[in-house]
Amino acid sequence: MTTKTITVVRDLLATNKQAAAAIRAELRARGILGVNLLSSPGSGKTTLLEALADRFRGRYRLAVIEGDIETERDAERIRAKGVPAWQITTGGACHLEAKMIGKVIGGVPAEIDFLFIENVGNLVCPASYDLGEDIRLVLLSAPEGDDKPAKYPQAFLSADALVLTKSDLLPYLPFDPRKAADEALAIKGTLRVFKISAISGEGLDELAAYLVEALERLRSGRA
Amino acid sequence: MTTKTITVVRDLLATNKQAAAAIRAELRARGILGVNLLSSPGSGKTTLLEALADRFRGRYRLAVIEGDIETERDAERIRAKGVPAWQITTGGACHLEAKMIGKVIGGVPAEIDFLFIENVGNLVCPASYDLGEDIRLVLLSAPEGDDKPAKYPQAFLSADALVLTKSDLLPYLPFDPRKAADEALAIKGTLRVFKISAISGEGLDELAAYLVEALERLRSGRA
Repeated sequence: MTTKTITVVRDLLATNKQAAAAIRAELRARGILGVNLLSSPGSGKTTLLEALADRFRGRYRLAVIEGDIETERDAERIRAKGVPAWQITTGGACHLEAKMIGKVIGGVPAEIDFLFIENVGNLVCPASYDLGEDIRLVLLSAPEGDDKPAKYPQAFLSADALVLTKSDLLPYLPFDPRKAADEALAIKGTLRVFKISAISGEGLDELAAYLVEALERLRSGRA
Repeated sequence: MTTKTITVVRDLLATNKQAAAAIRAELRARGILGVNLLSSPGSGKTTLLEALADRFRGRYRLAVIEGDIETERDAERIRAKGVPAWQITTGGACHLEAKMIGKVIGGVPAEIDFLFIENVGNLVCPASYDLGEDIRLVLLSAPEGDDKPAKYPQAFLSADALVLTKSDLLPYLPFDPRKAADEALAIKGTLRVFKISAISGEGLDELAAYLVEALERLRSGRA
């Protein structure tokens, strides 16, 4: 039973890898930066995307693919910002897979600069699935606690940047951003770290600049 | 591929169901109430167990099985409260399974009243796995947002009680406990709802009384 399960999972991951490679090639050819957002439920993924929509308005064009088990809620929040959004409801599955992205990517307008993919809220399963993105952000909110990187290492190991969210709540919490960052950097030393608050605006300029740099690198062929 | 995967998952769940039934029978025979705690990472499962350890001290005997992907941290926190604790590290798996509980349950002292099982922090996958518990608690912390029940319905559908945690943070958050509770009750009308704070102590008496009642019901054979 165990051997059979492992084989099936391995096959699924190989299939996913092929689909992800095709998406990555298509996005690069179109000069679009794909960004995959991973975190626990309620860490602030949608709120961050709303804040970036405001920040980039008139300068860069965004599109968003939303992943959730059920409901169209997050896509509706993004559309209310004037950003095109597609909602994928997995109906129970704990993560997005590349083939799900492949089904909607044809409808993404060609003139987009950034394609954000908000994964299902889950700090475990989405880490194993490449969606063809160029940048993977892992979010960790202050209320979750600064002990999470070592407990959920794969999400941090697979990411390019760590975004510590809800910094406006730090006065009310025992969360130490330095400890969280150090623990994540012990897992992956090349992680870029941002401390942000979508409420106060802290750190959003730095994170936006990081994304714009990655877009320019992609378009100059240095990705 | 899909058919094969579904069959394997179905077989695994059937195997899990058998193992869970054996654990439930053993716990009931020993007069121990099994309680399975489900939530996102950082919703306050371990902190709630620390608070219950303080509350029950000298009146009821507790044991705790901790589930995490990596680290012994949570078991160490529980042991510091003088409560015996076993740490299961899944090494990547996103949930506990009954057979993992079966491997450690023989070591649980016979004179225990409550066996708490803290699942891997994940609001999705643990919902599908019966661990042989009598009571399942789903925790939702105020910072996660009151829109979560409809987005992650299975966790709320499979639970006996909803524990809204971190109520001390409500003054700083847009979280509406009534909205969260109503949304969960629309999924499962029989859910008992508790609003607690391990910091201020709000709601802990009510939750402790609920658990003691369930223990008494189990021991009187009315479970």
